[in-house]
Amino acid sequence: MQDRTYTADAEPGSDATVAGWVHEIRDLGGIAFLILRDTTGKIQIKFEKDEMDDELVETGLDVSRESVVKVSGAVEEEPRAPTGVEVTPESLEVLAPADPELPLDPSGKVDADLSTRLDNRTLDLRKDEVQAIFEIRSEILRAAREAFREFRCTEITTPKIVATGTEGGTELFPITYFGEEAFMNQSPQLFKQLIAGSNVERVFEIGPIFRAEEHNTPRHLNEATSIDFEGAFCDEHDAMDVAEGVVTAAYEAVAENCSEELEALGLEESFEVPDGEFPRLSYEEAIERINATGELDEQLVWGDDLPTEGEKALGDDVGGHYFITDWPSEIKPFYIQDHDDDEGLSTGFDLMHPRMELVSGGQREHRYEQLIEGFEQQGLDPEQFDYYTKMFKYGMPPHAGFGLGGERLIMTILGLENIREAVLFPRDRQRLSP
Amino acid sequence: MQDRTYTADAEPGSDATVAGWVHEIRDLGGIAFLILRDTTGKIQIKFEKDEMDDELVETGLDVSRESVVKVSGAVEEEPRAPTGVEVTPESLEVLAPADPELPLDPSGKVDADLSTRLDNRTLDLRKDEVQAIFEIRSEILRAAREAFREFRCTEITTPKIVATGTEGGTELFPITYFGEEAFMNQSPQLFKQLIAGSNVERVFEIGPIFRAEEHNTPRHLNEATSIDFEGAFCDEHDAMDVAEGVVTAAYEAVAENCSEELEALGLEESFEVPDGEFPRLSYEEAIERINATGELDEQLVWGDDLPTEGEKALGDDVGGHYFITDWPSEIKPFYIQDHDDDEGLSTGFDLMHPRMELVSGGQREHRYEQLIEGFEQQGLDPEQFDYYTKMFKYGMPPHAGFGLGGERLIMTILGLENIREAVLFPRDRQRLSP
Repeated sequence: MQDRTYTADAEPGSDATVAGWVHEIRDLGGIAFLILRDTTGKIQIKFEKDEMDDELVETGLDVSRESVVKVSGAVEEEPRAPTGVEVTPESLEVLAPADPELPLDPSGKVDADLSTRLDNRTLDLRKDEVQAIFEIRSEILRAAREAFREFRCTEITTPKIVATGTEGGTELFPITYFGEEAFMNQSPQLFKQLIAGSNVERVFEIGPIFRAEEHNTPRHLNEATSIDFEGAFCDEHDAMDVAEGVVTAAYEAVAENCSEELEALGLEESFEVPDGEFPRLSYEEAIERINATGELDEQLVWGDDLPTEGEKALGDDVGGHYFITDWPSEIKPFYIQDHDDDEGLSTGFDLMHPRMELVSGGQREHRYEQLIEGFEQQGLDPEQFDYYTKMFKYGMPPHAGFGLGGERLIMTILGLENIREAVLFPRDRQRLSP
Repeated sequence: MQDRTYTADAEPGSDATVAGWVHEIRDLGGIAFLILRDTTGKIQIKFEKDEMDDELVETGLDVSRESVVKVSGAVEEEPRAPTGVEVTPESLEVLAPADPELPLDPSGKVDADLSTRLDNRTLDLRKDEVQAIFEIRSEILRAAREAFREFRCTEITTPKIVATGTEGGTELFPITYFGEEAFMNQSPQLFKQLIAGSNVERVFEIGPIFRAEEHNTPRHLNEATSIDFEGAFCDEHDAMDVAEGVVTAAYEAVAENCSEELEALGLEESFEVPDGEFPRLSYEEAIERINATGELDEQLVWGDDLPTEGEKALGDDVGGHYFITDWPSEIKPFYIQDHDDDEGLSTGFDLMHPRMELVSGGQREHRYEQLIEGFEQQGLDPEQFDYYTKMFKYGMPPHAGFGLGGERLIMTILGLENIREAVLFPRDRQRLSP
């Protein structure tokens, strides 16, 4: 298909071969138009019935919507055409006819529920606004990686088949691995730490994670994309700087490189890049501010986890992204270090978007004895994690890191209602196919 | 650790705080040196015993190798030091002591077998030449993505938990998904085709694939990184152009951006970027040339798959990368299209490195009836793949693509002996941890 011209590149005054889907046919009697759609946009194909070969006219106007056609002809300016140009066909070939009964209308004139859309993603992705989400997703991933590289990180790939989960055997999908029990990994946590302890020092990974959680909400997935960072000689403040930098870089890239996509989503006016630094509130400040909003029936006290309504109230109050730092140790994972001067206070942090949590991170426990104690307090057998813990005996530097939910990032950047809109083929309790 | 200076950035005439691992201690009597190593290199720390605080000297010289220390002091030029500079410490802190009994010697003076290295990756990755492999891996992945974007591709993420495998139920790892049987995906093949059939048109994905093959060779992994391309309105020649472009871009990026790493691997002299276009031999030419080498005991005939010795003989004969095209249909997967003018001849192709196969691709079957027939001929029930086949009824354009083995690419670029050296934590029949 070397001779194909994208519709957006078809120059008036030239001959071109365009190919794409039949978006619409408008038959006005003596004249008719076929609107052909490809990845770059749409172009008008003009049929003047009396002046053109009958067979060509018939083929072009009898073809069903969403069929794939290839058209060659002269491109001319035509101010009344949707894109200001039109093609007068000299030849037209139907490359793939479409069944006239479509399970989903890609022109978007008929609404479809999310489940029908996901069952027919190929058709769904022919809509400008759905294509736009995934073009933006691609750009966000590119920008995140570039930002990590600017923070001197090396990209790593950690295994998805593992012998033990990060936080023990709960919420793991079991797999049979050559007769042995194994699991699909719920987080690259332990592996990225093992690499941060080497000369690579600073690492990132963007990859799948698998969680057998029974949640079925608009913001949970059982297979998700995790954007992970871990850095030797970093503390929690450094990790927050990196999280802030990566999230901001994603917004900036969308603003800079995705104007057409934002327009397709109706966001061209409202889209804003977060400005400056995200406020860093301590957990203590956070519960005070939540209590002060009066939105909760019951006042929060030290040690409470933040309920969803509390996060929402605080998000409205702050009005943008913010960090919550200095959590009570008991509600943060055992591999997060406590502050030296206060054992009850964790170095763990969360990065919040007003709508939901995006990032969880902190300085890690790098001291062997304390790490073993942490496993035991968690009710986990440190022996089972020997492949991990033993490396802490051989010069494990202080290090910090975070995990950022990829789909949550996309969802909050674009204001999507359901996290399933941010992933091509979502996996949840009900959905295993396609 | 905001005040830390990388050893490579320590400027003579300034004060700096450096942090890293104790690589070596050389005690010459009145004077002693500690060589400190971080991700950027090594720096000499000088101890003049009579002129310095006794406690500082004792802490600095009693510390065990691979312990993590932080040193602050004046940086001065010293032509006799390994990097031309040295630090006279004003303070020294041991951040993480290392057990003097190391399971692996990161200085590389004592050889370790691959299994010991993989069991102790953190220590293994403190060796320059091992760190270099993974810095280069990171660069290769970056360059591959950039090349795909230049070919107007969108990055996609397809699910790794699936209801059915690409080629049926063989060689799949079974997983229990909320009580249902599911599998870990062996290839994004079907999903990337579903997206190529939408307005996204051209896609790439770099992600994990899982194959329950019982192979246990230096070039097979049970969890590997697949570099996938699929493009609407592309034929097999276009797909070969993309494969050639991506592989060449990876070599170019390594040559351009990884000179230190190539030096660490001893490849600075011998490394070569493949020049020009890779020859495209038909299967028929390939077997003729193999037969002509006289390396095989038995002559190959039409329809034979190429044995490893045959590939080797041809690789030596060609002396670089090459494509094999126009395979007999029966030894290519059913989703590859045959040539219009010869039903026994497939549009499938392989991209070969003289050492091994890197890429498999072709033009796909986009015609619904022929696709259903293909499933049946393969002994697969098309009903089970309904989520995939039904989209071929609604305007599936001609399309082509390929899968490129990520670790094989890295392995051949760097001349690694074993594919396990190209992945941080390999998975094979024996190895599930770490």
